[in-house]
Amino acid sequence: MPAPAITLLTDFGTADGYVAEVKGVLTTLAPGVPILDMSHDVPSHDIEFARLTLARYWKRFPVGTVHLAVVDPGVGSSRAAIAVESEGRFLVGPDNGVLSPSLFALDAVVVTLTVDAGASPTFHGRDVFAPVAARLAMGESIFSIGERCLDPVRRRTPQPVRNAEGSMEGEVLTIDRFGNAITNLLARDISTVFVANQAVRVVRTYADAAEGELIALTGSSGLLEIAVRDGHAASRLRLVRGQKVMLVQSGARS
Amino acid sequence: MPAPAITLLTDFGTADGYVAEVKGVLTTLAPGVPILDMSHDVPSHDIEFARLTLARYWKRFPVGTVHLAVVDPGVGSSRAAIAVESEGRFLVGPDNGVLSPSLFALDAVVVTLTVDAGASPTFHGRDVFAPVAARLAMGESIFSIGERCLDPVRRRTPQPVRNAEGSMEGEVLTIDRFGNAITNLLARDISTVFVANQAVRVVRTYADAAEGELIALTGSSGLLEIAVRDGHAASRLRLVRGQKVMLVQSGARS
Amino acid sequence: MPAPAITLLTDFGTADGYVAEVKGVLTTLAPGVPILDMSHDVPSHDIEFARLTLARYWKRFPVGTVHLAVVDPGVGSSRAAIAVESEGRFLVGPDNGVLSPSLFALDAVVVTLTVDAGASPTFHGRDVFAPVAARLAMGESIFSIGERCLDPVRRRTPQPVRNAEGSMEGEVLTIDRFGNAITNLLARDISTVFVANQAVRVVRTYADAAEGELIALTGSSGLLEIAVRDGHAASRLRLVRGQKVMLVQSGARS
Repeated sequence: MPAPAITLLTDFGTADGYVAEVKGVLTTLAPGVPILDMSHDVPSHDIEFARLTLARYWKRFPVGTVHLAVVDPGVGSSRAAIAVESEGRFLVGPDNGVLSPSLFALDAVVVTLTVDAGASPTFHGRDVFAPVAARLAMGESIFSIGERCLDPVRRRTPQPVRNAEGSMEGEVLTIDRFGNAITNLLARDISTVFVANQAVRVVRTYADAAEGELIALTGSSGLLEIAVRDGHAASRLRLVRGQKVMLVQSGARS
Repeated sequence: MPAPAITLLTDFGTADGYVAEVKGVLTTLAPGVPILDMSHDVPSHDIEFARLTLARYWKRFPVGTVHLAVVDPGVGSSRAAIAVESEGRFLVGPDNGVLSPSLFALDAVVVTLTVDAGASPTFHGRDVFAPVAARLAMGESIFSIGERCLDPVRRRTPQPVRNAEGSMEGEVLTIDRFGNAITNLLARDISTVFVANQAVRVVRTYADAAEGELIALTGSSGLLEIAVRDGHAASRLRLVRGQKVMLVQSGARS
Repeated sequence: MPAPAITLLTDFGTADGYVAEVKGVLTTLAPGVPILDMSHDVPSHDIEFARLTLARYWKRFPVGTVHLAVVDPGVGSSRAAIAVESEGRFLVGPDNGVLSPSLFALDAVVVTLTVDAGASPTFHGRDVFAPVAARLAMGESIFSIGERCLDPVRRRTPQPVRNAEGSMEGEVLTIDRFGNAITNLLARDISTVFVANQAVRVVRTYADAAEGELIALTGSSGLLEIAVRDGHAASRLRLVRGQKVMLVQSGARS
C-alpha cells in the first residue's frame, strides 16, 4: 500500500528550483502519494535547527509516512546517506544527525544508501534521497534499500544540570518565529526563571501575562519557553541559542 | 464524502515545525483529503491582514472545502474557538475576527469549540482547530462539533465616507508584495485620486502607464489600488495602512 | 485521464492571498488533481530568474503534468497569454519568455489564449492561466484551447565565448540561496577559473575544499558554479548576475 504522505524538510529555499526538482522525482517515482512541505526555510546548513524541527512532527504523521529531511552541508563528502524505519515511519536523509529524533526508538532500523556514480555530488536530495523516499513510499522494504548501518550519527538535546543548591541550569535550544526562546528545561512546581540577568515569572499561558510582560511558560512541546506577551523575547533580551537559563524553585532564592 | 481540500492560513512561518505538526494531525485524522497551503507568512499576530487575505480566497474553493485560519495572539485566553459553515464552506479558527468574511452570509452557522483539558494552552492550531477541521473534512455535521455561538467577533472593512463636496475619503487597507496599496475605494467614473499630497491618474491596467508612473487602478478584488508601473508605490510614497486616500470626480477639483 | 499534477511558479509571495485564489480556481476546475508549489518567492517581475528555475524542473515531472508559471510584469498589456505542449508536458503562462525552456523542443506546440472580457486586467494568473491549466489537467486537447501561435517569445541562456588564446569567457547566470554563483560555463579538463580578479580552483565537490575555501565545481544542472565551502561566495566576491567569468585550461596561464 502506498504511503499516506511524503514530507519534505530542507534548507533549500524554494526560488532556485531545487525543491521543485525533488518534487518532480517524487511525483514520477511515487505516483499518487501526497507530497507535503514541512519547511524549506531552515537556516542554511543548520543541522541542529532541522533536528529540532523534525523532532516536533515526525511522529504526528500516520504509520507508513516517509519523511525526507535534507540539510546536508557535507554532501559529496564521505558522510553516509541513510534511511530509517522507526515506530512505523520512514525517514531518509544524510547521516549527520538530522534524523536523530527517530534513531533512539528501540525498534529503529537504519540502512546505508548506495550513491550511484551518476548522482550529482552536490545534490543528493534529488539523486539519492528522493528516489529512496519514493521506493519506501511505494511499499518497498527497508532491507532492500541498503546494508544495515549500526552506528548512525546521533545528536542529543543537551540536558539541564542540577546545581548543588537545587536549581536547574539549562539553555536556550532555539528561537522561534515569534521570538520565543525554547529551552531544554521542564517547568514543574517552579516559581522563577533567571535568564540574561532577569527574573522571569512562570505562567500557564500568554493570557496570564500583562501586555509586554516577560514570562516563562510551558510550550507546546512540553519545554519551558521564555516569551513576551505580544512581543519578541529574543530581541528584547538578546537571547541566543546556547544561552544559560536557570530555574529556581519557590523560595529557594529571594 | 470527504472534503475537496483543507486549506491552511497561519502566521507561524514554516521553519519551526508548527505547521508541520498541524499537517501531521490533519493527515492522521482526515486521510486522503488534500492539504493546501494558503500562506504561513501572515505578519505575526496580524488578525486584520489575515482577515483580508482570507476574504480573497475562501469562496473561490468548492463547496465542502474546510479553511483553517490560525492567527491567534489570544491563544489560551478566554477568546472562544469557533467553526463556521457559510455558503457551503467550513471555516475553523479563533473567535477574534479572522473568519469575519464568512460571518456576514445569511446562512452562516457558528459553533463554539470545546477545548480539551489536554490541549496545549499555547497551540490550539494543533490541538483544537486541526482536529475539528479534520472532523468537518470527513463529513461530520457542524452541529455535532459544538454549541451554537450567536455573537462571534465580526470585523468589517472600514467604509469610505462621502464628503460634502462630493469626493470620497477612503484609506489604505493593506500593502501587497508588489508595493501596491489596496484601498477601500471603488473607482467609478473617477478621474483623480489624491494620496500623500500627490494627484494620481486612474488607469485600467499597468500597461496604460509609463514606466515608473504613479497610477491608481481597479485591482483584482474590485478595489482601487495605488501602484507604480514596474515600481513599488508604498516605498515611493511611504504609504502605510490606514493612510487617507481621496477620490475626486472629473472636474470637481482643478 | 487527469494530470499527475499541476505545479505553480509565481512571484506573488503567499501572504496576500493571490496564490490562494489561484489554488481555489484549480481545486474547483480540476478536482482531484494534486497541486504542487514550486515557488512563490521568485524576485518580483524577474522573468529571467523564473525562466532559469523552470528550466530546472519542468522535465523532471511525468508526462501529462501541467506547469503554471506566472511572472508577468506585462499583465494587461498586449503581451499574449500562451499554453504549450512540449515533450508530453503542458505549460501555461504569459508570452514573455518565462516558458522558453519548453519552446525549443522539436515537438513544441504553442497556442494563444483568449482573454475574456471579464478577466481582471491585473490578475491573469487567476482569471486566464489557472482556468486553462485546469482544462489541460482534465485532459482537454491543447488545440481546443486556442489558435496556434508561431512566434512565441523565446529567451536563450547567454552562451560563453571562446577567446583567441583558447580560454572561455562566460558569465554568472544567477546566485542561489547558498550564495553559489551559477555560470553558463561547462567545466571540462579545466584547471582554473578567474572571477572578480581571483583565481579559483576547480574541484569535484564541496568536500574536496578546505572550510572557507573559494572553489568552482560542476553543479547539479551540469554548469560550473563558484562557491565557498561552508560560506557564501556571492557576498564574499560581490558577485552579480552578468558578471564575467573566465575559464582557463591547465597551463594556459601561469
